[in-house]
Formats: sequence, structure tokens, C-alpha cells
Amino acid sequence: MTHPRFVTVEGIEGAGKSTCLNVIEECIRRRGLELLVTREPGGTPLGEDLRALLLGHRHDGMADDTELLLMFAARAEHLHARIEPGLAEGRWVLCDRFTDATYAYQGYGRGVDRARIASLETWVQGARRPDLTLLLDVPVEQGLMRAGQRSAPDRFERQHVEFFERVRAGYLELAAAAPARYRVIDASRTIDEVVAQITTTVDTYLDQVAA
Amino acid sequence: MTHPRFVTVEGIEGAGKSTCLNVIEECIRRRGLELLVTREPGGTPLGEDLRALLLGHRHDGMADDTELLLMFAARAEHLHARIEPGLAEGRWVLCDRFTDATYAYQGYGRGVDRARIASLETWVQGARRPDLTLLLDVPVEQGLMRAGQRSAPDRFERQHVEFFERVRAGYLELAAAAPARYRVIDASRTIDEVVAQITTTVDTYLDQVAA
Repeated sequence: MTHPRFVTVEGIEGAGKSTCLNVIEECIRRRGLELLVTREPGGTPLGEDLRALLLGHRHDGMADDTELLLMFAARAEHLHARIEPGLAEGRWVLCDRFTDATYAYQGYGRGVDRARIASLETWVQGARRPDLTLLLDVPVEQGLMRAGQRSAPDRFERQHVEFFERVRAGYLELAAAAPARYRVIDASRTIDEVVAQITTTVDTYLDQVAA
Repeated sequence: MTHPRFVTVEGIEGAGKSTCLNVIEECIRRRGLELLVTREPGGTPLGEDLRALLLGHRHDGMADDTELLLMFAARAEHLHARIEPGLAEGRWVLCDRFTDATYAYQGYGRGVDRARIASLETWVQGARRPDLTLLLDVPVEQGLMRAGQRSAPDRFERQHVEFFERVRAGYLELAAAAPARYRVIDASRTIDEVVAQITTTVDTYLDQVAA
């Protein structure tokens, strides 16, 4: 048996992460592999509290540094309580967003110094990085329209289209800088086409590492 | 007018920090100086929420890294929203505990790597450090007895006497390493004697810097 892998899904609002997570989960389970599905920020009771605090409206105006530290606090707990034990027990871990989202939203989106993010990333994660990241890429207007159909926009969704343009471009830059880890999925297509793309991508990866 | 100073009070449970803060406040105000009194962790609405989360029992067992990041998140917000603006407006800032408490409790007390604390300290504070720190030093048993008379012990107070011995020794080591900033007060004496010691110490400092 090969060692389990840490797989993440990234993308802007409305890119279709939920569908993608379901498809990946199915591909992995079909091979008889054990799997833990989780999400960022959150994934632990403490993380969920911090998620509520971050996404809620109450503390609008918190300092960028504060937000970054809270995100990495949730991440530290998530790693400690779920991700690392899961991997240690031989389970694959599938996570809805991880540190790439911090780079994309806080770094590229809001202009937080990416070197400062990198310094917290190393502090919290040591050498731990995802083994495979699927980036669901979609034009911002299309993504926001899809996201808007669901529920009241949260603090992040309310922000401007230009913000999401920077996030999208940031994600693509991250993907270009780490081609061995990233797979970019064209999420602007029909759902059947997107599902097919994801299935092929994940099956190919599984053929390589979990043969 | 001289520039305002950042003053902190440190010490283990039951050392008499509340009394000390009142005495320092009086000394500073008597000179006609503007003063902001605040506390760590806390000092902002977000900080108070994080304080409740940290001191409460619900998340017992959170990872050391998580706790440290939450403390520095509260501190970042505190610096951003209160301490730095206060100093910038010309007010002295008097704070009940600051980063030295993190070194003492998490570092010396719990054995968290102090280099890791230092790295977050620099990340969050840049070059900001207290200008004056009063350490209320008291034998652990005496401090815990005093603290026990007040209210139900919280998560930190329940821990062992040996833990507080390490914290006390840590504080004394920090003070010895930064003699220009630290003043050690013998808080084992009668309240009148302690008040007199603090008054003399703070008045002497004020004579030097705010003449």
C-alpha cells in the first residue's frame, strides 16, 4: 500500500467546489482507500467557532494581521486534531480549501504581504503541504452569479468583483508556480463536462500514486 | 512633552496585579498624563471573545500552537485597535500582561519552544516592546492561596504548583535578561509595603522620563 495523500480543492465562490469534492471522494473511495473529508477554515469545534467569527459581520474591520493569525490558528488545530492523525492512520485527506486560499484571498486579493503569509505557513505547517490541489477556475462574473443563487452573501462575497479578479489571477499564478501539485480544472463548462474533467484528473493521479 | 510610554504589569496568579495597576494608574494620572488602561488577552471585543475561548473549558486540549496563535491574534488586534492608536495620540498605555506572559506561561511553564514564541512576537509586534514592566514576584504557594480566595479556579489556575514555579522562575529570568525595562517588586510583603514599593518605582521612572 502506498502512503495516503493530502488532497485540496481551491477556487473562488461559485466555482463548484461542493460538486468537485463529491466527485473526488467517489474516485478515491472507489479504489477502496480510506478517506477523511474536511474543510478550511473549520474542521474542528474550535475551528468552526473561529470560522463563524471570521465569516460573521460582528468583527468587520479587524486588522489583516488578526485575521491571518485566526486563520492559521484554525489551521493549526485542524492539522493537529484531524489532518495529521488522519494521514498517520493511513487515511487520505480531502480538504475544502487550505493555505492556498490564504495566499489567494488575503495575499493576492487584499494585498497582505505574501512573505508574511509564507512565514506563518512555515511556522504552522513545517514541511506539510498538499500533495494534490485541484483548482476550479471560473470567470468571476459566472462564479459570483452561481454563488448569488444560493444564500445571502457573506462578508467575503460582498466584496467587489475586482477583488475576485485578483483572487482568481492569484490562484492561477500559484498553480503555474507549482505545476507538479496543481491541476487546473475549467469550471466554466457544463456540470457534466466538469465532472468528467475532475474524474479523469483524479483517476490519472490515483493510477500514478495508488496503483 | 516627552513621548508616552507603554507600561506592563506581569506576575503569577495572586501576585496582586489589580492593586498594582491601580497604584500605577494613580502615579501616572497625578502627573497630568493621559492614560489608557487595558489588559491581555482581551482589550478589544474580538480579544474578549478570544479570551473567553482561551480561558474557558470547552476547548481543553487544543494544540499549543493553536493557543499561541490565538493569543497573538488577540494581541495583534489589541495593538492595532488600542495600543498603537493610544500611543500615537499621546496617551500612556498601561497593560495588564503582555507578551512576557506568553513567554512565562507557554514558554517556561509549558515548555513551548521560546524561539517559536519569539518568531510570532516579531511577526506581530515588529519592534514594539513595553518601555517599562513591573514584575510582581511572590512565592507560588502564597500567590495561589490569594488567588484561590477569589473565585473558581480557571483552566490555568487548576494546573500544578510546579507549573507556576516554572512560570515564576521564567519571569525572573526574563527580568534578569532585560534589567533596563524590568522592575521586580517583592509582592510577598504586606499590601502597604507593596503599594509603597510600586509608588516609589513608578515615581522614580516618571521623574526620569516625564520630567
